Amino acid sequence: MAARQQLTPVLRRLQLPRAAANINRTRQAALQQSLSRPVRCLSSSRPRCFHQTTAVAATAKHTSETYPDIQRDARFAQLTPEHVAYFRGLLGSESAVIDGATSSDAADDIEPFNSDWMRKYRGHCRLVLKPSSTDEVSQILRYCNDNMLAVVPQGGNTGLVGGSVPVFDEIVVNMSRMNRILEFDEVSGALVAEAGCILEVADQFLASKGYIFPLDLGAKGSCHIGGNVSTNAGGLRLLRYGSLHGTVLGLEAVLADGTVVDDLCKLRKNNTGYDLKQLFIGAEGTIGIVTKVSIQCPQRSAAQNVAFFGLESFDKVQQAFREAKSQLSEILSAFELMDEGSQALVRQVTNNKRPLESQYPFYCLIETSGSNADHDSEKLAAFLEDVMEKGIVADGTLAQDETQIKSLWAWREGITEALSHLGGTYKYDVSIPVKDLYQLVEDTRARVDEAGLLGDSDEFPVRAVVGYGHMGDANLHLNVSTRRMDPRVEKVLEPFVYEWIAERQGSISAEHGLGLMKKKFIGYSRNPTMVGLMKNIKNTFDPKGILNPYKYL
Amino acid sequence: MAARQQLTPVLRRLQLPRAAANINRTRQAALQQSLSRPVRCLSSSRPRCFHQTTAVAATAKHTSETYPDIQRDARFAQLTPEHVAYFRGLLGSESAVIDGATSSDAADDIEPFNSDWMRKYRGHCRLVLKPSSTDEVSQILRYCNDNMLAVVPQGGNTGLVGGSVPVFDEIVVNMSRMNRILEFDEVSGALVAEAGCILEVADQFLASKGYIFPLDLGAKGSCHIGGNVSTNAGGLRLLRYGSLHGTVLGLEAVLADGTVVDDLCKLRKNNTGYDLKQLFIGAEGTIGIVTKVSIQCPQRSAAQNVAFFGLESFDKVQQAFREAKSQLSEILSAFELMDEGSQALVRQVTNNKRPLESQYPFYCLIETSGSNADHDSEKLAAFLEDVMEKGIVADGTLAQDETQIKSLWAWREGITEALSHLGGTYKYDVSIPVKDLYQLVEDTRARVDEAGLLGDSDEFPVRAVVGYGHMGDANLHLNVSTRRMDPRVEKVLEPFVYEWIAERQGSISAEHGLGLMKKKFIGYSRNPTMVGLMKNIKNTFDPKGILNPYKYL
Repeated sequence: MAARQQLTPVLRRLQLPRAAANINRTRQAALQQSLSRPVRCLSSSRPRCFHQTTAVAATAKHTSETYPDIQRDARFAQLTPEHVAYFRGLLGSESAVIDGATSSDAADDIEPFNSDWMRKYRGHCRLVLKPSSTDEVSQILRYCNDNMLAVVPQGGNTGLVGGSVPVFDEIVVNMSRMNRILEFDEVSGALVAEAGCILEVADQFLASKGYIFPLDLGAKGSCHIGGNVSTNAGGLRLLRYGSLHGTVLGLEAVLADGTVVDDLCKLRKNNTGYDLKQLFIGAEGTIGIVTKVSIQCPQRSAAQNVAFFGLESFDKVQQAFREAKSQLSEILSAFELMDEGSQALVRQVTNNKRPLESQYPFYCLIETSGSNADHDSEKLAAFLEDVMEKGIVADGTLAQDETQIKSLWAWREGITEALSHLGGTYKYDVSIPVKDLYQLVEDTRARVDEAGLLGDSDEFPVRAVVGYGHMGDANLHLNVSTRRMDPRVEKVLEPFVYEWIAERQGSISAEHGLGLMKKKFIGYSRNPTMVGLMKNIKNTFDPKGILNPYKYL
Repeated sequence: MAARQQLTPVLRRLQLPRAAANINRTRQAALQQSLSRPVRCLSSSRPRCFHQTTAVAATAKHTSETYPDIQRDARFAQLTPEHVAYFRGLLGSESAVIDGATSSDAADDIEPFNSDWMRKYRGHCRLVLKPSSTDEVSQILRYCNDNMLAVVPQGGNTGLVGGSVPVFDEIVVNMSRMNRILEFDEVSGALVAEAGCILEVADQFLASKGYIFPLDLGAKGSCHIGGNVSTNAGGLRLLRYGSLHGTVLGLEAVLADGTVVDDLCKLRKNNTGYDLKQLFIGAEGTIGIVTKVSIQCPQRSAAQNVAFFGLESFDKVQQAFREAKSQLSEILSAFELMDEGSQALVRQVTNNKRPLESQYPFYCLIETSGSNADHDSEKLAAFLEDVMEKGIVADGTLAQDETQIKSLWAWREGITEALSHLGGTYKYDVSIPVKDLYQLVEDTRARVDEAGLLGDSDEFPVRAVVGYGHMGDANLHLNVSTRRMDPRVEKVLEPFVYEWIAERQGSISAEHGLGLMKKKFIGYSRNPTMVGLMKNIKNTFDPKGILNPYKYL
């Protein structure tokens, strides 16, 4: 009955524009415009969500200080001037070698390659190599393997778990010079590009052909597609286009000993032996350096719509998700979840007017993409009317143009920034079966509260425990927003959160990988048999262990 | 201009029913009915397409005679009564052990497990084991590994490359008793089932929940989902739902030494280490026996439409494919290609009236599936009008009901049967970049013709060289229809076909795997480096080589 009372005013807001087709053409134009904006530079680009971190330091502390338990592996050689001379000779170009030992300027130049963007991890690297071809990568690795020099493969360095920066004095092999788009088949949609190609560059190229890269994420202005593949990046389009394990058609990689693995298949079907490329997808550079990628790209959708609505319970969120999958089916491209706590923080920081008049415990953002704007608008309106009539959704609004689409997305995408304005945050990027997804937030909040750490005034170290994420992928971001560092908070959270996830067969890293940060926690998501098999794989591909040491396993 | 002249009569035929929604409801009912038919037994079910084979023998010849070069590996132990007694004690139930040595009846009972359905391969197996649990599989393999007994994992035995039957006296581990559906999450769509669950049973279960199995193929009444995963089956829905590498969420498998690998994840995102399950997908039972599967299932579409059209050239087929992907985009679920030669054979055998009035060099069958029947019909009609106006499609027809849908599909699905009525066939299931896809048929036809082997009268051994397949997946079935065995034909075809494919970086096995048949041809699609790495993987997982010997690599 409550829902029915809401129906009239809400449906007025939900009313479709008379000339939906025109409006959608405007949206398209705006979209095109946004796509043709200049590629963001490293410093201005931020991944959409990041992991657990307490207040980020202004100047980065060396990882070796933060983690004194990790010792440099004495088997690795120290870098000598002879090594550097070899690489200079090999790569030729001045700009391809940054040797931090030559001057203080060079040492400064090397810093961006030594630290992650969060300034949470910082290595002692003294040499950065920028190969421009697979052959150069091969020769670099062969030399390193022969001389026991440890290596860190590095893409756009936008990772969140410290996987792409050195811990000690590992040589950085940065892929930014291998950035060419090599081939595109306009009939099949297969794109072949070098690993250092920036995701947004690839996507802009595809836009000009009427195609889309089957992956989208906040760091797209800086991240490399080789890095995306190496970390099995998830992002915003996974609900629609699936994971990289399904979309990557082939790749080329160089093993630790310099062997080039040419598996650059451009076919959707190829059942001739073990699908080795799958091992490199998500291997975080520990078994080889991905040098080229072949990927299946879908046609770009002509129409895009976004709706935002409020719901009274997580049970209703699940019902709405089921209905959206059923009724919007093939056009559903995002189903995002935000709780009231996360929205209150955005409101507090931005002071923007909320999309809905009232407040609800939960909000969802639904995006559709399809080939026919009128059809999509009709489906979305029918869906919203249905879920409101059934009392699943309490209130909702439908974006009428590109500005409104962006404005609605800002309530989801602005959460990370709002949190970072307010102080430190403990962040957990996890996956849990949908039915239990939000329970983790409630149980964590109750636990922090019971410990007397959560409250509205300054005496409490924790301001809020909030949850949001990619509901469509069962991917939750649990965030504990703090006013100040307090060792009691971490003690209450860990290992509680990891144990809670392990009990429900969830994943302690949904989309960001293990890197240095979660190496020691893999046992919460993988059993000893699997970890043992993984170590066998690592030893098979990199027997001397020179690739990305101290991390992953 | 020619296309414009055609437009009027064709559009009349293409005209949509006034009450499309009702018609589509009828279609749905018919579909439901067809889905609830009893599961076909092994003998009546046929995979939709199969590999190269000359005239199939009425009684199967032993593989050891057909391939005298393959020798039994002397490292493997001979089966003894003590071994059989151990397995009887382990499995308990009488029906779980078929011991071919006990009586001639038992020897007869064992034959269906010893031969493939094409009666092309036949082993000398004397023991079939049917475990009912993962623990039993584990104990069987541990014992076999300890005692050097070779094993063939077997699902529904519907394979096409001799991968699921023994070559010599390997023990068959048949998975048919592990056939339970274990779990289904109605919110996420994650299904968990035992490996021996028949595909159609799983799909019927999902239909009752409004979901669909993301794989469909002709053998669905007999094939097991464990076998599907182990062979990375492609089938009819790949264009829409992608490969099993993207849809399988997790699996449980038993390694050669009995170790149970529990990777039965039900999450879409889990970036914690190498994605080991991917190695089992398409491994054809050579590194372990898959015992359980977890898979992401999409919502079932409410509406289905099928169109059939004629085209003047393969260039126009490619244009039509591009337009279909662009205009039908998210609702396109199949794009199948048939040449005139293949259709003439179907006409010759069935005597059915052709769907179109005139004949064309090429025909395509397009299927759409979506959540809204009216929208889909409108999109399909607009697409057809557009491609005809542009002169891409010369003529076309749109199915008006479920009967017509089936009737149009019969022109695609009936090709294999028509060919088998006419004599022997050399069949090649291959993948080639789309632009070159049909050139293989033309080049092969020219070559056979130049050799004086192709003609209309009985003096020529070859009746026709035809091509058809899953255009949407760049998957061609090249078929050479023969009147009689003639060694000159094979000599003209091989290695010509394989070399032709290798030159264009195609795959010699698009969707059916390697098995025994293509083991020796892997080098045409994979380089020595990759084959070497694959052998390392095999040795890591099955160091004694007891799993499915003589095949794959």
